[in-house]
Amino acid sequence: MSAVMATYLLHDETDIRKKAEGIALGLTIGTWTDLPALEQEQLRKHKGEVVAIDELGESERVNAYFGKRLKRAIVKIAYPTVNFSADLPALLVTTFGKLSLDGEVRLLDLEFPDEWKRQFPGPRFGIDGIRDRVGVHNRPLLMSIFKGMIGRDLAYLTSELKKQALGGVDLVKDDEILFDSELLPFEKRITEGKAALQEVYEQTGKRTLYAVNLTGKTFALKDKAKRAAELGADVLLFNVFAYGLDVLQALREDEEIVVPIMAHPAFSGAVTPSEFYGVAPSLWLGKLLRLAGADFVLFPSPYGSVALEREQALGIARALTDDQEPFARAFPVPSAGIHPGLVPLIIRDFGLDTIVNAGGGIHGHPDGAIGGGRAFRAAIDAVLAGRPLREAAAENEALQKAIDRWGVVEVEA
Amino acid sequence: MSAVMATYLLHDETDIRKKAEGIALGLTIGTWTDLPALEQEQLRKHKGEVVAIDELGESERVNAYFGKRLKRAIVKIAYPTVNFSADLPALLVTTFGKLSLDGEVRLLDLEFPDEWKRQFPGPRFGIDGIRDRVGVHNRPLLMSIFKGMIGRDLAYLTSELKKQALGGVDLVKDDEILFDSELLPFEKRITEGKAALQEVYEQTGKRTLYAVNLTGKTFALKDKAKRAAELGADVLLFNVFAYGLDVLQALREDEEIVVPIMAHPAFSGAVTPSEFYGVAPSLWLGKLLRLAGADFVLFPSPYGSVALEREQALGIARALTDDQEPFARAFPVPSAGIHPGLVPLIIRDFGLDTIVNAGGGIHGHPDGAIGGGRAFRAAIDAVLAGRPLREAAAENEALQKAIDRWGVVEVEA
Repeated sequence: MSAVMATYLLHDETDIRKKAEGIALGLTIGTWTDLPALEQEQLRKHKGEVVAIDELGESERVNAYFGKRLKRAIVKIAYPTVNFSADLPALLVTTFGKLSLDGEVRLLDLEFPDEWKRQFPGPRFGIDGIRDRVGVHNRPLLMSIFKGMIGRDLAYLTSELKKQALGGVDLVKDDEILFDSELLPFEKRITEGKAALQEVYEQTGKRTLYAVNLTGKTFALKDKAKRAAELGADVLLFNVFAYGLDVLQALREDEEIVVPIMAHPAFSGAVTPSEFYGVAPSLWLGKLLRLAGADFVLFPSPYGSVALEREQALGIARALTDDQEPFARAFPVPSAGIHPGLVPLIIRDFGLDTIVNAGGGIHGHPDGAIGGGRAFRAAIDAVLAGRPLREAAAENEALQKAIDRWGVVEVEA
Repeated sequence: MSAVMATYLLHDETDIRKKAEGIALGLTIGTWTDLPALEQEQLRKHKGEVVAIDELGESERVNAYFGKRLKRAIVKIAYPTVNFSADLPALLVTTFGKLSLDGEVRLLDLEFPDEWKRQFPGPRFGIDGIRDRVGVHNRPLLMSIFKGMIGRDLAYLTSELKKQALGGVDLVKDDEILFDSELLPFEKRITEGKAALQEVYEQTGKRTLYAVNLTGKTFALKDKAKRAAELGADVLLFNVFAYGLDVLQALREDEEIVVPIMAHPAFSGAVTPSEFYGVAPSLWLGKLLRLAGADFVLFPSPYGSVALEREQALGIARALTDDQEPFARAFPVPSAGIHPGLVPLIIRDFGLDTIVNAGGGIHGHPDGAIGGGRAFRAAIDAVLAGRPLREAAAENEALQKAIDRWGVVEVEA
């Protein structure tokens, strides 16, 4: 029987097995023991099954918080795929629809049968396709976040864009809070941005891609994205969690929108952080975004003030790059709080197939965005050459200034 | 300055005012004090403002849970509407996008300027329009949930539908986990369901509406909903939180889909339950669903095992029916754990403009769905007549059997 396997963390006062059996039936055929034998025969292939219950110890800390004693358990339940259509909304409704409202229950993971996965696209470009577009195959990519654009005009945007490209970044992305406006209209950002980056290319020979924020109403997105593709947009930034996972998939699957898609984690924190509720980050930001077709996924790095726990951030990256999956790998982009001195740590934690993504760590450099980009590139080169950053900084003024400002975390080889 | 006002609950170790100022700037123009006077002039109308900080006392229980001392405060921040487009994804990204990832922060409420609201539809039918369609104006409506349909066929569906209608329910809704399938295809459910209900109408003179579950991929929903409208569907059930608020709005705004929309809360529990994170139910299930155009909103009642706290459930209902809003009122549908003996409590809590919605409380009646419907209708009549249910049950066998099975909660007048 083909089934999706869901793993939950339950906190509950009552008998966990009974609760789990109630979930498995309640989210599939409703009742079982009361049914006549003939109906059981007819409905057997639709019946959810409790596959495993792993009781954890009680947590005194949790019990004190709730003021009652809660059993804790990891529970696995199999939902026959015959029960629901092969789309992400149906998957969420079946495995965590009304269940999400049923007390202290958190969705940790979903495992899919191979033939079910084949109905999903995965990334169109993935890490390899993006590397081809950027022309960089042997190091982490460097991306800059385009902050402080609200209220500015196109001249300001293109001038800032050029500075960032001159610093040697591979990608520049819009801030996710930059929407389509009269001052900075979507199409003009693409065309003028492209022209500015072409100027830099002619000057330096270095290509920089610009990720433009795809915003607006859901049913206008496809036309907008097609127009972006026609205008030669490099990458589409997309606030997937403010729309819906299935909207991302629809953009990915449209053959007239052959543009890499960068998923932003905005609003995902409404779902992921609680110990008791919501969805684990490795599933919400990792496995499901890759399934739906994100080429890049931004998520909070473990280093800054807006941070994920290290294991959660690594879990997202693993889900995006796991080579056992039948999908292209998506680029993990650990973000927030990144400065050049963290590059050794980023590469130790996330390897070479990652993107070093900085906002203030580039713009806030003493020499501005150009210095910031150069400092990062020097830091990346140093780590790849196995050199300590402090040593490399002796020969690179931009890197030295960055270290003076933000410090450095060297990593033992 | 036209601005959306967001209210947050913050738990934070550091200075709350500093954190609030960081949010107000970080989610708008980024920096302020460092800017030259000319740029300040240019950007002033885009700048977010901290409008109020209401410090709450620390909670020992919370401090013990986190193992550190956290200040608690209600913070109000104004975001100029000029910064973002008038759509719900832009609203969520601005007010709770990256902020949702920034530690212990919960979005409690959003307040909108009148001219901003005018860009949203609200319910097309609302309570009054639904009452006209059902032909019932003087009492709460009664709805039955169509459970146990997975794996069944159309003959079973129509036979069960008739039983429910014969019991006198006003509406029958699909279970939200019932998807389009070969056994129970969407269009046939509408047409055969309609025929079955017409039969009952001819027999009894009582109209019952059937809410069919609108499922599938996002960009196929409009065509499917239009087809449903052509086929005369009474109501569309919609798992809005598995898609996106803006998808609901798009269905509401389409002039070829003139069918009432019933929003189901599936997956909303991934967002609402935590004390520290996510979005308050009155906003997520109340104000925003009404703004986007839901005619009905289901949410957990305060009475069952899958329950909301009473104040949260009432807060949703208030947001759906607040007559200060320039929108039609949406029907509050407190659901789960409802049996006839709770009708006095439901009417005390939610008034007459509500829907009594039951699954097991109808199907699990000793006399089946017909008896269940009759028991509920008798209970509603009794409460409206100011009679105790036990007294009314003496003259109504179905109600007596329901009370014998589930008990009764009488309410003092």
